[in-house]
Amino acid sequence: MPLVRISLREGKPETYRRALADGIHRAMVETINVPPLDRFQAITEHPAQSLIYDPAYLGIVRSDNVVFVQIILNAGRSTEQKRALYARMAELLQASPGLRPQDLLISLVEVSRENWSFGNGQAQYAV
Amino acid sequence: MPLVRISLREGKPETYRRALADGIHRAMVETINVPPLDRFQAITEHPAQSLIYDPAYLGIVRSDNVVFVQIILNAGRSTEQKRALYARMAELLQASPGLRPQDLLISLVEVSRENWSFGNGQAQYAV
Amino acid sequence: MPLVRISLREGKPETYRRALADGIHRAMVETINVPPLDRFQAITEHPAQSLIYDPAYLGIVRSDNVVFVQIILNAGRSTEQKRALYARMAELLQASPGLRPQDLLISLVEVSRENWSFGNGQAQYAV
Repeated sequence: MPLVRISLREGKPETYRRALADGIHRAMVETINVPPLDRFQAITEHPAQSLIYDPAYLGIVRSDNVVFVQIILNAGRSTEQKRALYARMAELLQASPGLRPQDLLISLVEVSRENWSFGNGQAQYAV
Repeated sequence: MPLVRISLREGKPETYRRALADGIHRAMVETINVPPLDRFQAITEHPAQSLIYDPAYLGIVRSDNVVFVQIILNAGRSTEQKRALYARMAELLQASPGLRPQDLLISLVEVSRENWSFGNGQAQYAV
Repeated sequence: MPLVRISLREGKPETYRRALADGIHRAMVETINVPPLDRFQAITEHPAQSLIYDPAYLGIVRSDNVVFVQIILNAGRSTEQKRALYARMAELLQASPGLRPQDLLISLVEVSRENWSFGNGQAQYAV
């Protein structure tokens, strides 16, 4: 059910972007009970001047490798689960493709279960 | 009021994308009381490797024609209205531009009425 | 904490897009207590046929210069603060880069404080 939007600067090789997407998904599977096959991700590459970030907000030193990860998902995860998600995602992306943890910005948007259709015009998650 | 983001693979002709956008809007007008003139849509085309989808999640067989439709709209629609929206959108897009219903993923994000400005720096929907 | 998505037609000079982004951020700082360094913005340029808008909805005459501004932010701002944000943003963007107030569409998406990580895999805003 999550829909994931990944925004980064243009210029990275495809293997880099794939490793980003893989690590983001794996962190969700491991920490917030996302089914392994429930994977829908859209990656957008931006020219340098179109991905604007503060290089020091909250004392975190960011670089041009900054990645914005927006996850639209069902409401219901606890704050502890969210903390686990952030920590695991940073860890996995540091391992591959080598993203500095400082360069990972994550934003969750929570919605209701009936707000999804995964195909066939049906609301598969509605109860 | 809805703001609609449509994500698909690059390479389709303009007429195809226009038919997608037309059908998405028409389904909203017909099923969830969106005014016909209330139409604001942003289409993003992605290279193959930047639009990632599972080809079988929930037993639905998806293809490279998959389309992600994200709709930001006011809260308040019932689950029945949402079901009607999904079904009608799948039906209309199957008729034109010929999208397989399996390839239509829909995600709704609900917000409050005062969360919109449609121009002139005013909150037209705030009560 | 806000994550801002700015969508406009392709073809404007970089200075124009920068002025847009600057004015949007400044309006948020001045009216809804966003810290000056809390700035994360992704700009997407669309071909003409991929940014669809109604040229007259609610009696507002829009042009091809229309800009969609989506702001993901923490819940908690009052309707009065939101009104002030819209008005100030329209005013600042009219001054620079010269955007007609009719061409500014704003959409807010509110989330919880624990829904953010600004780096290092931590939930900096969680309480």
